[in-house]
Amino acid sequence: MHHTAAPAHFFLALQDQFGSRFTRGDSARLQHGRDESVHAPELPDAVIFAHSTDDVATAVRLCQQHKVPLIAYGAGSSVEGHLLAVQGGVSLDLSGMNQVLAIHTDDLDAHVQAGVTRKQLNDALKGSGLFFPIDPGADASLGGMAATRASGTNAVRYGTMRDNVMAMTAVLADGRVIRTGSRAKKSSAGYDLTRLLVGSEGTLGIITELTVRLYPLPEAVSAAVCPFGSIDDAVTTVIRTIQMGIPVARIELLDALTLTAINRFSKTSLPEAPTLFFEFHGSNASVKEQAETVQGIAAEHGGQQFEWATRPEDRTRLWQARHDAYFACLQMKPGSRAFPTDVCVPISRLAECIQATNTDLRQVSIPVMLFGHVGDGNFHLVVLIDPTDPKEMKEAEWINERVVDRALAMEGTCTGEHGIGLGKKKFMVKEHGQDAVDVMRAIKHVLDPEGLLNPGKILPD
Amino acid sequence: MHHTAAPAHFFLALQDQFGSRFTRGDSARLQHGRDESVHAPELPDAVIFAHSTDDVATAVRLCQQHKVPLIAYGAGSSVEGHLLAVQGGVSLDLSGMNQVLAIHTDDLDAHVQAGVTRKQLNDALKGSGLFFPIDPGADASLGGMAATRASGTNAVRYGTMRDNVMAMTAVLADGRVIRTGSRAKKSSAGYDLTRLLVGSEGTLGIITELTVRLYPLPEAVSAAVCPFGSIDDAVTTVIRTIQMGIPVARIELLDALTLTAINRFSKTSLPEAPTLFFEFHGSNASVKEQAETVQGIAAEHGGQQFEWATRPEDRTRLWQARHDAYFACLQMKPGSRAFPTDVCVPISRLAECIQATNTDLRQVSIPVMLFGHVGDGNFHLVVLIDPTDPKEMKEAEWINERVVDRALAMEGTCTGEHGIGLGKKKFMVKEHGQDAVDVMRAIKHVLDPEGLLNPGKILPD
Repeated sequence: MHHTAAPAHFFLALQDQFGSRFTRGDSARLQHGRDESVHAPELPDAVIFAHSTDDVATAVRLCQQHKVPLIAYGAGSSVEGHLLAVQGGVSLDLSGMNQVLAIHTDDLDAHVQAGVTRKQLNDALKGSGLFFPIDPGADASLGGMAATRASGTNAVRYGTMRDNVMAMTAVLADGRVIRTGSRAKKSSAGYDLTRLLVGSEGTLGIITELTVRLYPLPEAVSAAVCPFGSIDDAVTTVIRTIQMGIPVARIELLDALTLTAINRFSKTSLPEAPTLFFEFHGSNASVKEQAETVQGIAAEHGGQQFEWATRPEDRTRLWQARHDAYFACLQMKPGSRAFPTDVCVPISRLAECIQATNTDLRQVSIPVMLFGHVGDGNFHLVVLIDPTDPKEMKEAEWINERVVDRALAMEGTCTGEHGIGLGKKKFMVKEHGQDAVDVMRAIKHVLDPEGLLNPGKILPD
Repeated sequence: MHHTAAPAHFFLALQDQFGSRFTRGDSARLQHGRDESVHAPELPDAVIFAHSTDDVATAVRLCQQHKVPLIAYGAGSSVEGHLLAVQGGVSLDLSGMNQVLAIHTDDLDAHVQAGVTRKQLNDALKGSGLFFPIDPGADASLGGMAATRASGTNAVRYGTMRDNVMAMTAVLADGRVIRTGSRAKKSSAGYDLTRLLVGSEGTLGIITELTVRLYPLPEAVSAAVCPFGSIDDAVTTVIRTIQMGIPVARIELLDALTLTAINRFSKTSLPEAPTLFFEFHGSNASVKEQAETVQGIAAEHGGQQFEWATRPEDRTRLWQARHDAYFACLQMKPGSRAFPTDVCVPISRLAECIQATNTDLRQVSIPVMLFGHVGDGNFHLVVLIDPTDPKEMKEAEWINERVVDRALAMEGTCTGEHGIGLGKKKFMVKEHGQDAVDVMRAIKHVLDPEGLLNPGKILPD
């Protein structure tokens, strides 16, 4: 679609309305025109800093009047080009909507503005005995996490944003404000608009407030690392653990190259082999039992060197290292950018999928790290490239297409948690079929007939 | 909307297509024109027995050609008039689509046709070490359970149909067949059409196949009953249990009158007092620990008479009694019909909600039983009426409106698991607001422009 510059009187109207919270400055536009992906920046024409649902509704109405695109911006941590202004328009920065509005300890839920980040919420929960588990690595905003249906290391136990957003306030493309869901734990009252907005990447409405589920802090937590002789052995350990119904809180796989990267970056001295990171939550007795059972399963598959991290500081160091894996990988090839991809397959196909992917990786010249949330059958590739080098970009694209095609052939999905954005639009029809994509397009069209909310994302052109 | 009789050549076309699987006979029409609700039967003009997704697509296309309504029929166990042919048309009986197509023990999922019932699936799972937990009481079809977003006693631990349908095949209003979701445990690939169809009560598409999640049979199961001095004490026990994060598998409240009904119906001799039914799943050690903790909480709130049912046959008897509560209640007033209602509130408001409801109940002449899935904040009223007696109907309507208004004022929902059907349409705007209901209506219109799929349900007129 062609990008027509917005008229000058439109910007004057925004300026009138938002004063110093409106800017057309280059640095703000640059900051809001790129994310953590390899996509080249695409700058918005202006940035508005919203402080309330009313602000958002006003901005949406002005954009609608002048047919100008509008892109919601949270923390800028998306990895598929979700927030790039491919048709220009206005970036609506929600990071100032950072109030934790209510914490209901009795009901295990919290009501927050969309710009609150997951770490900020967990800080606000200190002393309450509760926590918010969803953890995509980056300190993303909860609105952004809902919009991309994010998850992360804890999803195997606590689910994804799909499962943990109970209700939301959202501004529609015509400026109407709706409230979806309720604080009831379950409901059969009509179409599930909450779940329709979760994962819609700002294309159906702008999420301004959310009610999210909280969980009691476990009485006991323990973590462990265990290297394996092969990825196959590690994955078999994962499969057996899940099949036995052990309520493991985290079970992460990292390949040997990722361990090398982590050791260099985090000054650790972990064995540079395929490794599982575990975390167990529960009562003291239950954590002990879970851990012993899993240790037994691992030992049967060549994972004898179970190493425990029971002290909180050891656990923190361990998971910090896991979360830094992405940055650690980047350091393996200074000056490079990461071309990240993530797929998710039925767990029975995981070992085969990873093995075939590794065969592909031996055919390329660029370094690729593999790690992920294998308890859910979800894994990531971090392909290190110089985005200005066409050969490297081509290799990265090839790897991406191979792993996605393989995941789809195995009844999986082209993205477990990163979302579609720009980068995976081309796989939508292959995954869902033309008719299902047409249904999505029909829903988009009826809710945003002018196509102004985050245009060019999710739906193939 | 006015109900125009379908033309004769339409029925001839159906007859041609479906032969003996098509009927206009009175008994089939009567059977397919009523459910378990108090709504007066509304008969379809014809019934088709579908055996495949192709059958469904053919029937939908013929109905679309002749602008005739079409209503999917599973087991007929809905309780809000969901399947009544208020505008006539064709009832499409899916009970013959009863093949369990695949059981993936490694991936903990099963692929079934929509007419498979939950008991049939669990029978098919015997020997696999897995089970399907969702249990709405009736032996409903899985397609119907998905369509009403059903749940039941196990939802506190295993979630509802929203959480346990991974993928589905559905026929749209124009006869196109879509497949939503995948067998991956999580995905961020586009709009969540699966969750849009779950709970849509056959108004957006006809579900013909589903992939559902399975769970490992717990190593140990134990159950218990405990009477309390007051509903308040029982509810406080529930709240404390949930807040402590004890992964209780079932926690059900029944009021004193329900216990009286159960004792008469099931020949049990349980104390006729407010009572909690519990079930614990896990390893031997974990079940023991959970049970002891909950027993301790109960004792602190006057629940000293914890009675255990550890033998499988005792547990079966206990839960059979719980599931028969509905029928037991009906026997308390022979010849009556049950006017069932269910609401769900944040658990912190549950005691207050039940107490205020009991104050209402003292003002009516008809017997009302209260029981429910209180771990989720969900409870039911079974109001026993003679539907031909206007005074009793009026009292029942009054109780229903009072409890729904109260639940909504407490940030809850007008139905936790029964659905909207005909009976709760009038509460949709009060619960969701006009704008959100208009969004639902827009989605309905774009997916079914002629309004032929289960017309007159969910959306207020």
